[in-house]
Amino acid sequence: MKFPSRVTLQESYARVQPHVHQTPILTSKLLNEQAEAELFFKCENFQKMGAFKMRGAINAILQLSEVQRKAGVVTHSSGNFGQAVAKAAKELGVTAYIVMPQNAPEVKKNGVISYGGLISECDSTLAAREQAAQEIVRTKGATFLHPSNQMEVILGNATAAMELLSKKPNLDYVLCPVGGGGLLAGTALAVSYMGENCKTIGAEPFAVDDAYRSLQMGKIALNTTTETVADGLRTHLGDINFPIIQQGVSEIIRVEEDEIISAMRLIWERMKIVVEPSSAVPLAAVLRSASLFRQKKVGIIVSGGNVDLNNLPF
Amino acid sequence: MKFPSRVTLQESYARVQPHVHQTPILTSKLLNEQAEAELFFKCENFQKMGAFKMRGAINAILQLSEVQRKAGVVTHSSGNFGQAVAKAAKELGVTAYIVMPQNAPEVKKNGVISYGGLISECDSTLAAREQAAQEIVRTKGATFLHPSNQMEVILGNATAAMELLSKKPNLDYVLCPVGGGGLLAGTALAVSYMGENCKTIGAEPFAVDDAYRSLQMGKIALNTTTETVADGLRTHLGDINFPIIQQGVSEIIRVEEDEIISAMRLIWERMKIVVEPSSAVPLAAVLRSASLFRQKKVGIIVSGGNVDLNNLPF
Repeated sequence: MKFPSRVTLQESYARVQPHVHQTPILTSKLLNEQAEAELFFKCENFQKMGAFKMRGAINAILQLSEVQRKAGVVTHSSGNFGQAVAKAAKELGVTAYIVMPQNAPEVKKNGVISYGGLISECDSTLAAREQAAQEIVRTKGATFLHPSNQMEVILGNATAAMELLSKKPNLDYVLCPVGGGGLLAGTALAVSYMGENCKTIGAEPFAVDDAYRSLQMGKIALNTTTETVADGLRTHLGDINFPIIQQGVSEIIRVEEDEIISAMRLIWERMKIVVEPSSAVPLAAVLRSASLFRQKKVGIIVSGGNVDLNNLPF
Repeated sequence: MKFPSRVTLQESYARVQPHVHQTPILTSKLLNEQAEAELFFKCENFQKMGAFKMRGAINAILQLSEVQRKAGVVTHSSGNFGQAVAKAAKELGVTAYIVMPQNAPEVKKNGVISYGGLISECDSTLAAREQAAQEIVRTKGATFLHPSNQMEVILGNATAAMELLSKKPNLDYVLCPVGGGGLLAGTALAVSYMGENCKTIGAEPFAVDDAYRSLQMGKIALNTTTETVADGLRTHLGDINFPIIQQGVSEIIRVEEDEIISAMRLIWERMKIVVEPSSAVPLAAVLRSASLFRQKKVGIIVSGGNVDLNNLPF
């Protein structure tokens, strides 16, 4: 497999930049003291529609032909990518069909609707979602956008870490959560070209540690449960992002559910920002593997802030 | 009564600035669309210890003599000012005695303790709090700092609106919540010297509308209940801040409890920031009095972000 070049990354950056917010990088003296490290939070919860997924969606839709744009786009998503496609498509005048599981949080469904996306509900299994999406490809001629396993999406996601590294070039580590692998692969690409002795680390709940096991086994492993509070991380890696992760990620740190909830609470209470559970997984990893990060400069991609306030874990 | 001069405000600004965060001014396209106005949120929830009160505490303690500093400071506070005094005192090497009602939120008590303040618990009535504070003045020789009715505190508070107006000089309105009146008086002073045709408006829950009634009657009115979700706004005006408010505030807009909760939720969901209920009162006022603010540039002082996550109103 041919990996994207430095130039390809730069072109994605130039393409995406006019359509997204350059999100702030926040720090917290209290969290630095607790971690005994310098933490830099790249706040994609402040991104358009509240998550980094906007970047991948924009990058993918911008590369469609006129004919493809007219027929629309379709995706299946537990939420954030669905909203991102809906919003990105609306901004670019494209119809978006969003396949969502019936049990997706209301706030995410309402988000899709408010952005003008057309929702098709299905069962929450991946198979049911994929089937519903393929049906729309067949009947509408829409282009399928994968939430994580598509190069245009991965390259769009990479722009978050690129922005971070352009402001903080001397980071020792960049951490992000890993679910489907699209953010982790994009982050690894960004770090490999822009980092100076910087390593990319994925952070993952023990309950859905498919990425950890995939790297151990050398092939894509599946999850046997979706029982994690980090609802954005229940999916598994794909054949496009896995090779990039194999080559570019130094390790996956796994964390317990109570560590995620506690890290999420710390971010809310200390930093006064709203982040979703998935976004707290990297901080949980930093606190769990404290000795690895002590006295280091650590970038954390805060993936999003779309939570259901009626269903908080604390 | 002699009002502080422009020079006095500038001196306070120079004194306070090195000790506080210059907090960001955030905007939200979605909230602007909803309000049909341009809203600029001065985010004092990102201030040290999570509230604007840090500014007044710092300004007051910085003006004590060496002898006064050695004997320490004391205050009574439903929370944020207590934490602010504890933290400001610690940074300046001064002992802080904090009188707090027994029913204050745990998060605020823990804040005071973590900042090294010494808590004395008392009943939640104002009389009980004042009595406990006076006892510490007598026995320890500590200097009493009032949360809202003291000129040094008011001038410190003014620096939030001064920062806002230095970045956004052409605001039509600046809104802030009114409880004890210290933030509103400080904001009015800042606007009177730095605004260009800018008006200061206070926002207040109907349930504790003492400021509204005080302006109507021309003398300080008291609240008969403390039954509001905006726990920072249950106190009443004082003889130092009331004349400033009378002269500098164009009106007080009152809002219902459900409007406060709904505005708070909007800020959390749309802006992805954690704000306390009191901080949502100005946005509730903007949405309630929509015609007044339509097409205007409106500054909002987001007073703080210290909430008990186990006791959210939604």
